[in-house]
Amino acid sequence: MPRSHAALPRLFVTPDLTAGAQLTLAKEQSLYLAAVLRKIVGDEVVLFNGRDGAWLTRLFSDSKKSVTLDLIEKIATQTPVSDLWYGFAPLKTERLDYVIQKAVEMGAGTIQPVITRFTQVSRLKHERLVANAIEAAEQCEVLSVPTVEPEITLEKLLDSWPADRKLILADESEASSSPVEALQGLKGHKVGVLIGPEGGFSDDERAKLRALPYVVPISLGPRILRADTAAVAALAVIQAIIGDWR
Amino acid sequence: MPRSHAALPRLFVTPDLTAGAQLTLAKEQSLYLAAVLRKIVGDEVVLFNGRDGAWLTRLFSDSKKSVTLDLIEKIATQTPVSDLWYGFAPLKTERLDYVIQKAVEMGAGTIQPVITRFTQVSRLKHERLVANAIEAAEQCEVLSVPTVEPEITLEKLLDSWPADRKLILADESEASSSPVEALQGLKGHKVGVLIGPEGGFSDDERAKLRALPYVVPISLGPRILRADTAAVAALAVIQAIIGDWR
Repeated sequence: MPRSHAALPRLFVTPDLTAGAQLTLAKEQSLYLAAVLRKIVGDEVVLFNGRDGAWLTRLFSDSKKSVTLDLIEKIATQTPVSDLWYGFAPLKTERLDYVIQKAVEMGAGTIQPVITRFTQVSRLKHERLVANAIEAAEQCEVLSVPTVEPEITLEKLLDSWPADRKLILADESEASSSPVEALQGLKGHKVGVLIGPEGGFSDDERAKLRALPYVVPISLGPRILRADTAAVAALAVIQAIIGDWR
Repeated sequence: MPRSHAALPRLFVTPDLTAGAQLTLAKEQSLYLAAVLRKIVGDEVVLFNGRDGAWLTRLFSDSKKSVTLDLIEKIATQTPVSDLWYGFAPLKTERLDYVIQKAVEMGAGTIQPVITRFTQVSRLKHERLVANAIEAAEQCEVLSVPTVEPEITLEKLLDSWPADRKLILADESEASSSPVEALQGLKGHKVGVLIGPEGGFSDDERAKLRALPYVVPISLGPRILRADTAAVAALAVIQAIIGDWR
């Protein structure tokens, strides 16, 4: 995308985006553009909806209650929705927001909170997580918003895990070795990655996971990583070796 | 390290650590142990100094002004100081603290703030950065504290760069391709990695960097990464492919 578009606000919307169309935003986004960002008639905004790429638009009306935008031109082709599944044991509020943000930045397609034995929280405000994912997508300029699933227990997750998807397990008990070979062997497969809680998996959970034929344990190095660091580190090596860094 | 030591407080100290020795902590660390953590005589604490590994110690005195510890046994052998050099354009306060923390977590040996054309800040509180690095080392259980250098301009950095060290450049303008091959070619070399500011390098800076024989540009994928995400992502792929994840 040309550098000049980089400074424009980007908003995720649901309607179709087509040439010559006009779109009126809902109250919340209108207020954000007109009152918070103080955009006026003639100012430009980028829209995306996960289907039609990114569009350059111009304000036709700057009413705080309902901003209307004229679609000018498509400035980015839609990229395929990511197939990368990302599961993690949720943390408390701020750190949870941060992990969602990092997962979006790193190109996860599905974000799945997983409740394990040593998980800190068990009830999540799903709408809040979705809002965070949308905001993160807008800010890091991805062209679709990952699906944020409602939380699920580890048990239920494994009971319903599709046999054709590999599950990369970031396991602190895995002897330190480079994940390069383990990951390269997964080229062409559908993959997911599961990051355990900061307290680790229980012995039972670990034994159960390691016994599953689709589980691929990898080490994330010899140091203890916080949950958000582990998220980025794991997604980075996966995306770099077998994901969309090519 | 046995799991039971994982919950013990860990402190970085400067004196030698030897069997049968007794160590009296300075005021700040004494206050932290006795008043904040409320440790009492008989409680256990882990100490490390970057030279003698990690030692299990027990409180002999719990005076808030001067805690004294008896060294009981060595519980971890000293690991070599990391040779990995990590340079980055500093951000404002909170985010700066966070980047320092992540660099320590990811095993950097030297942390170098680099002032570039589009860097947000130019004056740093060096003592604060050092304190953050120590705290991060204590929390992620590394056995030495990375050296935090005072800030330097990009120009001065390049003028004095040792010819025998490769400089991996996380360059957003590098066409997306897997860094695996580029990094595997660096096996056995001394390496550093430079993460530019969120505004990117200037055209002049980029041209100068790309012309240097020791610079190895890599892409960190097709998405825009925040500075702290880029830090972890770059260090993860480097450590995984040619670093200490083996």
